Amino acid sequence: MTAAHPTMQAICLRRLPQGMPQVDDFELCRRVIPVASEGQVLVRTRWLSLDPFLRAQLGGRYAAACPTPGDVIPGYGIGEVVADRSGRFRPGTLVVTTTGWAEYAAVGADQASVVNAGPVSPTLALGVLGMPGLAAWIGVRKILEPKSGQTIVISSAAGVVGSVAGQLCKAAGCHVVGISSQARKCEIVTRDYGFDACISHRSEHFARDLHEACPDGIDGYFDNVGGMVLEATLGVLRQRARVVLCGLIDQYNRAERPPGPNLGPVIAARARLEGLVVHDHLADLAQSRRELQSMVQAGTLRYHEQVAQGLCGAPAAFIDLLRGEHVGKVLASMGVQA
Amino acid sequence: MTAAHPTMQAICLRRLPQGMPQVDDFELCRRVIPVASEGQVLVRTRWLSLDPFLRAQLGGRYAAACPTPGDVIPGYGIGEVVADRSGRFRPGTLVVTTTGWAEYAAVGADQASVVNAGPVSPTLALGVLGMPGLAAWIGVRKILEPKSGQTIVISSAAGVVGSVAGQLCKAAGCHVVGISSQARKCEIVTRDYGFDACISHRSEHFARDLHEACPDGIDGYFDNVGGMVLEATLGVLRQRARVVLCGLIDQYNRAERPPGPNLGPVIAARARLEGLVVHDHLADLAQSRRELQSMVQAGTLRYHEQVAQGLCGAPAAFIDLLRGEHVGKVLASMGVQA
Repeated sequence: MTAAHPTMQAICLRRLPQGMPQVDDFELCRRVIPVASEGQVLVRTRWLSLDPFLRAQLGGRYAAACPTPGDVIPGYGIGEVVADRSGRFRPGTLVVTTTGWAEYAAVGADQASVVNAGPVSPTLALGVLGMPGLAAWIGVRKILEPKSGQTIVISSAAGVVGSVAGQLCKAAGCHVVGISSQARKCEIVTRDYGFDACISHRSEHFARDLHEACPDGIDGYFDNVGGMVLEATLGVLRQRARVVLCGLIDQYNRAERPPGPNLGPVIAARARLEGLVVHDHLADLAQSRRELQSMVQAGTLRYHEQVAQGLCGAPAAFIDLLRGEHVGKVLASMGVQA
Repeated sequence: MTAAHPTMQAICLRRLPQGMPQVDDFELCRRVIPVASEGQVLVRTRWLSLDPFLRAQLGGRYAAACPTPGDVIPGYGIGEVVADRSGRFRPGTLVVTTTGWAEYAAVGADQASVVNAGPVSPTLALGVLGMPGLAAWIGVRKILEPKSGQTIVISSAAGVVGSVAGQLCKAAGCHVVGISSQARKCEIVTRDYGFDACISHRSEHFARDLHEACPDGIDGYFDNVGGMVLEATLGVLRQRARVVLCGLIDQYNRAERPPGPNLGPVIAARARLEGLVVHDHLADLAQSRRELQSMVQAGTLRYHEQVAQGLCGAPAAFIDLLRGEHVGKVLASMGVQA
């Protein structure tokens, strides 16, 4: 098959990583160069994009399928079109697509987007001008919606998503605090990306440092990490703060996920969790009462009440309530004559 | 002081409860009947409202101050105005106010709201027509926003908040599933409140029962419990699901709070957490790229790239990335001549 089926180099999965991946979980392999079928393009890979989410995919914890041993490692990259059977690309055009870790890939033309780099490096289409940049932009524009003067915290601040998100918040006039794993990265975050401060989550004083960097609490948090960094940051939220749940780097290399409510499904579902404290809504009490009272009178809103007799019955009734032994509203009647 | 200072009965705190409160954490005590000062009303307590949040307050985990031994137990109630120094209430008027667990209370007139019960029981002003009803109404109307045909799950479904929330969602045409602690309460939830189903979170098959009751996942969840009930429910969220974080009954009696991200501060901050998956937003890629590219060209958006050489360098570069040894975007250059 050599002449008719020329081969290429690729990196294949040798075995699924346990915990932190090792170099020998991967191996160099040879594969037949694929042929573009109708509607596809053949690209020669120029740059591979190495992304943390691949670790999740290599554990079956990602939307895309988990590869099995022998498979070419999946992933995005920039390729140069060498053959087009879609009528949409000229040879030589650079496109972002799912190249995988291989010298060539045949992909559907609608899975390839042209790199219009202009005067900037084409590689930015995998970084600040690509999906990571879009994630930052959406999180800031559509969820955080930062206002001038607000305090915004961003984890993985030295990463592409975090650094773009922080610079967008700086441009919006915010006080921006980065969280990173290392002092040398924090230096880049403040010096190159212009964050107002940056703290290391590996410091033993992390919680204190976070409080000191955000003495009035935070209005928004862009989370790429999860775990104890998220935990600490939730503790300094200001009223009506917004939190973007964008990544869980903390969990990607763990065999067991950490205890407590797992927010991974919240990300996967694009769900929204919102805290409700009823005292904020007293202005709506009259309207809610009108509507609910008309339902009670119409028999469409039903209720149960359980009434303990006398002041001295209140403690036992309260304890029953906490034990879940009650039904509906629990009251203590003071037994005063009407 | 007997004649000049008549006394009343009250229930006072004997000691702060450890874990589940005991009856002897409370004690009957006598206190001088307070006198209404200018702007206040004196009320004779008719009904006490017994509420789970009091347990949080008795541990210093609530917005209101934690009482100390000897203090009258705080709380809402309905009282009858017996003396008015505000010019706003006629004697005999029933008001909801912070009576505490005592026969009489003097409170600011603006802290008392008239009970306009009409044909229904005045006690409903502490239940379905009071703050619990308002909490349910706000959570459903402003956060869940249920649409006909959607599946909504509600925990503490037999409680006032849960039962009202569920009946509002039924009225909106939803498939409503309750979660409760006991089979006898579940019977009330389905029979009296009209929920479509109700499952016990104390069942060993809870997770399976939840999946079976919501085979297509859930569009909204009204959480009054936290802990493993919240955890299980987050696992069955449908796309764009909304979650109301309204209570943490699971934590109120624990000395130590459970591990993992604590959502208590999220409730206290009325914060919003939202999952972001960038692939949903490809339609915005062009706009984000235009804006970010103009910032790059203007020098107001900076970036770092780290480029590994060659396909064989990719595994080690990927591992460095997971170890956090990189800065900015990590690429592997395939070394093809341009």
